[in-house]
Amino acid sequence: MIELDATHDPKRTSWVDSANAPDTDFPIQNLPFGIFSSDLIAPAVSRHFGIAIGASVFDVTRAKQLGLLEGLAAKAADLASAGTLNELFAQGRAPSRELRKQVSALLDDKSAEGERARALREQLLYPVSACELHLPTAVGNYTDFYSGIHHAIAAGSLLTPENPLPANYKWVPIAYHGRASSVRPSGTQIRRPHGQQGGAADRAPTFGPSQRLDFELEMGFYVGAGNALGEPVPVAQAGDYIVGFSLLNDWSARDVQRWEMFPLGPFLSKNFGTSVSPWVVTADALAPFRMPAMTRPASDPQPLPYLHDPVDQRHGGIDVDLSVKLSTDAMRAAGLPATQIIHSNAQYLYWTPAQMLAHHTSGGCDLLPGDLIGTGTISGPTRDQLSSLLELTFGGTQPVTLPNGEQRAFLQDGDEITFHGRCQRAGFVTIGFGSCVGRIVA
Amino acid sequence: MIELDATHDPKRTSWVDSANAPDTDFPIQNLPFGIFSSDLIAPAVSRHFGIAIGASVFDVTRAKQLGLLEGLAAKAADLASAGTLNELFAQGRAPSRELRKQVSALLDDKSAEGERARALREQLLYPVSACELHLPTAVGNYTDFYSGIHHAIAAGSLLTPENPLPANYKWVPIAYHGRASSVRPSGTQIRRPHGQQGGAADRAPTFGPSQRLDFELEMGFYVGAGNALGEPVPVAQAGDYIVGFSLLNDWSARDVQRWEMFPLGPFLSKNFGTSVSPWVVTADALAPFRMPAMTRPASDPQPLPYLHDPVDQRHGGIDVDLSVKLSTDAMRAAGLPATQIIHSNAQYLYWTPAQMLAHHTSGGCDLLPGDLIGTGTISGPTRDQLSSLLELTFGGTQPVTLPNGEQRAFLQDGDEITFHGRCQRAGFVTIGFGSCVGRIVA
Repeated sequence: MIELDATHDPKRTSWVDSANAPDTDFPIQNLPFGIFSSDLIAPAVSRHFGIAIGASVFDVTRAKQLGLLEGLAAKAADLASAGTLNELFAQGRAPSRELRKQVSALLDDKSAEGERARALREQLLYPVSACELHLPTAVGNYTDFYSGIHHAIAAGSLLTPENPLPANYKWVPIAYHGRASSVRPSGTQIRRPHGQQGGAADRAPTFGPSQRLDFELEMGFYVGAGNALGEPVPVAQAGDYIVGFSLLNDWSARDVQRWEMFPLGPFLSKNFGTSVSPWVVTADALAPFRMPAMTRPASDPQPLPYLHDPVDQRHGGIDVDLSVKLSTDAMRAAGLPATQIIHSNAQYLYWTPAQMLAHHTSGGCDLLPGDLIGTGTISGPTRDQLSSLLELTFGGTQPVTLPNGEQRAFLQDGDEITFHGRCQRAGFVTIGFGSCVGRIVA
Repeated sequence: MIELDATHDPKRTSWVDSANAPDTDFPIQNLPFGIFSSDLIAPAVSRHFGIAIGASVFDVTRAKQLGLLEGLAAKAADLASAGTLNELFAQGRAPSRELRKQVSALLDDKSAEGERARALREQLLYPVSACELHLPTAVGNYTDFYSGIHHAIAAGSLLTPENPLPANYKWVPIAYHGRASSVRPSGTQIRRPHGQQGGAADRAPTFGPSQRLDFELEMGFYVGAGNALGEPVPVAQAGDYIVGFSLLNDWSARDVQRWEMFPLGPFLSKNFGTSVSPWVVTADALAPFRMPAMTRPASDPQPLPYLHDPVDQRHGGIDVDLSVKLSTDAMRAAGLPATQIIHSNAQYLYWTPAQMLAHHTSGGCDLLPGDLIGTGTISGPTRDQLSSLLELTFGGTQPVTLPNGEQRAFLQDGDEITFHGRCQRAGFVTIGFGSCVGRIVA
């Protein structure tokens, strides 16, 4: 499953200068997929298939028109002509892999293909600042897991301190169906939701703006070929059904959630909006950064056979450094930059993406190409790795102090949350996910 | 909101003879919408917009081609040209209302329009037995409520007998997001799902075929115009966002559900399949059968203002008689007909469809045209109104005895479940929903 090839070669550099900067998320070794539009394209409303390279967007749709792509890669470009990546992803990972290979050669500053593309750069490259980035797929279904065990323990400790982790946690990759319609690309403002709060058996709830608005740091992944209803995907093959990854913010209204969620789970407390970063970092680009799945303590049960795959145990995890920054109205007015409040890593997931996908289909549920699956909040074991305000402030009781002296227990109007993700490993070029940003408005 | 017109006139009869039979679900006063294909249409793969009339399907797509529809009704037919009703529903209730009016006139045995259509009947009518009925919309999102209070009490009694109804129940129209991808039209076989069962804090679960497979008797309704993200629909207008209703079977694996659902709600226990009856009975056709919302005991709280609408309280309920029939392999082998095991009525819903829809949007969640919303299991207060096997058999402890002596605690392979729904009221012609059928296969 883990194959390294010339696209991962750390010596490969690009004729797009910004792609060779050490701090870019998008060196030639990454090449994530997205959907964009731009006033620089006529008509400006049309959506093209793009690949991020340094500070630019490489127009895959135009590259195909110019005859720069061939075979499966040309087909891959055509499959995105509707302005979403669903049809491309429906073909599984092979066309995406071939496209990434050919685009890598086209952007290489030492190849003949690169020389040819470079001559056409005016028609192929746009500054990302001149592009609008859209959802990469039309998300037919969105599922959110609960695979961050440190999050589950931290959240459970606030509700049921005597028994923080549910009895099923180490057996079942717990998940719920999220709301597909309200998934939005990074940058979309988040309106503070209204909802019922404060109810209890002996007390009437009130209805109004959420007072405990929060974020959750997650990763998302996109389904490729999908499966037919009634035909589960074995865990050993599940990785092949995952085309790529992004960052995901599962905005949550804690006061609404607490009151509404028994017995059927979260509903209005989460369906007012979910943000994703616009670039799909392919599973191929992430190959160098795979790692063994989280080590289970000896006292933990082994996964049931339908969730057990030795290969996945070796490569099921991903080493992605994750960070959360916050900026407030007052900070921006004072010229202060966003401040980092959380630092975590995707390696803390108890269940691997392959296990999540296999479990999702194990009862027969069909996954459709382009469906979005969230991992659940990825907290780590230390204080600064608690990846939501609920956890970080211990249920709002220990607010975070910001550089300008402001305090935050939960999000205020004007607060902006930014996620980043970076993959680093000796011998490889660092790649990143771009950002997932959302600002709260009243 | 409740408007009666000539389409409800009990004296109107049709030149389609089967529509005048007293036991038909589809007299000329009904005219429900659906999507069908037929070998009688060339090409057989094309999906046409149809309206049920007696034992026939009236081809709306063809009627438009023949010039029988005009104005908004002609536009309504065009909006379904993609083979789904999503685009039609996106226009709100007006085009559907006008189409139903014009088709009523076309099928009338005493009108000039009817005479004209009757002359073209060979091109307009197909026996329903020669048609395949599809999902009426491409279901982008499916939400399932929990609005049957007798179900909530019965189910809660099995889990937490000391406190059967959750503390939030009389304040919050509880719901969860269901799985849109696995919604299927009536007649689709249901494969018995595998899943984890029997786990507990001190006991390992096993994985295998569900041993406690069940159904839930619900109604579904379809979203019309939808709303933008962040813009709630007031309860007083919510009825206008509901185009029509169907029957819905929320198949459930009770053993899987019990183990997996804490804390985030049902997931694999329900996402292996949901069945809907194929005909959308329009809100217009149901106008004569609206009734006051369920009477709340004086000790119950009044709905919060965002859920309170005096008009909806007068007309929010629907008087739909609901029944569940079961037939087994052995019964069919012995030539025995399906036996009725449950009889209920939609009037037992604690929350009205308008309240459900208003609540759904109250935090800002966007509903899309053609989205499907389930009411939750509609049990009544008496024993034979308990509308799932879980309730009817008291958690499987008191099996139902069938006419041939077989017993059922939960569903066996080969068992077929059929829902029916009928609306009766003095002074009006009875209308029905057709059937929602599913058979269990291994």
